[in-house]
Amino acid sequence: MIFRQKEIIVKAPKRGFFLITDKILSSIDISDINTGMMNLFLKHTSASLTINENASPDVRVDMEMISSKLVPDGYDYNHSLEGPDDMPAHFKSSMFGVSLNIPITNGMLNLGTWQGIYLNEHRDYPTNRKIVISVWGV
Amino acid sequence: MIFRQKEIIVKAPKRGFFLITDKILSSIDISDINTGMMNLFLKHTSASLTINENASPDVRVDMEMISSKLVPDGYDYNHSLEGPDDMPAHFKSSMFGVSLNIPITNGMLNLGTWQGIYLNEHRDYPTNRKIVISVWGV
Amino acid sequence: MIFRQKEIIVKAPKRGFFLITDKILSSIDISDINTGMMNLFLKHTSASLTINENASPDVRVDMEMISSKLVPDGYDYNHSLEGPDDMPAHFKSSMFGVSLNIPITNGMLNLGTWQGIYLNEHRDYPTNRKIVISVWGV
Repeated sequence: MIFRQKEIIVKAPKRGFFLITDKILSSIDISDINTGMMNLFLKHTSASLTINENASPDVRVDMEMISSKLVPDGYDYNHSLEGPDDMPAHFKSSMFGVSLNIPITNGMLNLGTWQGIYLNEHRDYPTNRKIVISVWGV
Repeated sequence: MIFRQKEIIVKAPKRGFFLITDKILSSIDISDINTGMMNLFLKHTSASLTINENASPDVRVDMEMISSKLVPDGYDYNHSLEGPDDMPAHFKSSMFGVSLNIPITNGMLNLGTWQGIYLNEHRDYPTNRKIVISVWGV
Repeated sequence: MIFRQKEIIVKAPKRGFFLITDKILSSIDISDINTGMMNLFLKHTSASLTINENASPDVRVDMEMISSKLVPDGYDYNHSLEGPDDMPAHFKSSMFGVSLNIPITNGMLNLGTWQGIYLNEHRDYPTNRKIVISVWGV
């Protein structure tokens, strides 16, 4: 039974959705896990993680557009002290989630052909974001 | 420590939300796991998995209605080459997620009385969808 | 390899979003797990679990406001026999999800500074809600 963890830091270039698959894969060794799982856990409440299309950049632009249309900045929120983008960022964080589980098979992440791992930065001014990577298996 | 994985293929009869609990249960043996977990991972970006009501079919009809009202087809998306239902399908895939974790207790999935596992097909023309089933425990 | 599970019951004081981090931590011992994971699984289809801000109560008020604005009560749903708050509750349950995975590091939950665990009660009249806590690791 293998169980290992590593904490990494990622930072989005701006508000929006960004591919971090390569960053994750280069941060931890899973080549010795034949059958297992990887968990990615983002330690923040105004950003999120998701899995989506790894090819067309248009998809990432539209993810931002749709999510900010559903939960607009500057609406009449109670929680507004940290800026008009703060409460929508909290909501989006819970809508997409901060924790991903992906199977490991034959020493590799078992993602679909078109799947990539996204960091979703929901604040206007990105900051460093911590991700705990956990892998376990046999 | 038991750790096993299996990949299965499911296909929805049409766009919408469909119960696949029985299909999952008949695809992998968990009777020898006393305390454990099951992960279901859908290897696609325009469909999703969720857990919801296993009795009333009305709930599944309304899940489709509400999600397509929130993220309508044919809106002015940047990503539109693959049809008006494609970008909404990507968004819904991230809203619901593609990875489910369910506890295993005494050799059985520990779902609530009214819980069932749904395959959510967000495209107009369903295709084969791969799900990796992982189970682990003692 | 440690693997243990426990089922607990929680009840929200009313419809809305409530912190249950302390309740979870006091329900199960993880002090002997150096590197591991915790899964929380809610056995219901009209409530949900999420991770969000643990400080400002305003965030929890706004989470309820935004989610009920996105999926309003009493819309023209097919599934309406159990009241105008029932179908929106089902949808929110799938939007936020019923299963959380959090890393355990050095015998403690590895949450971010501002992260707390929420029980989201989506029905007008809260009932007892069962959560299966699973922990595993080395």
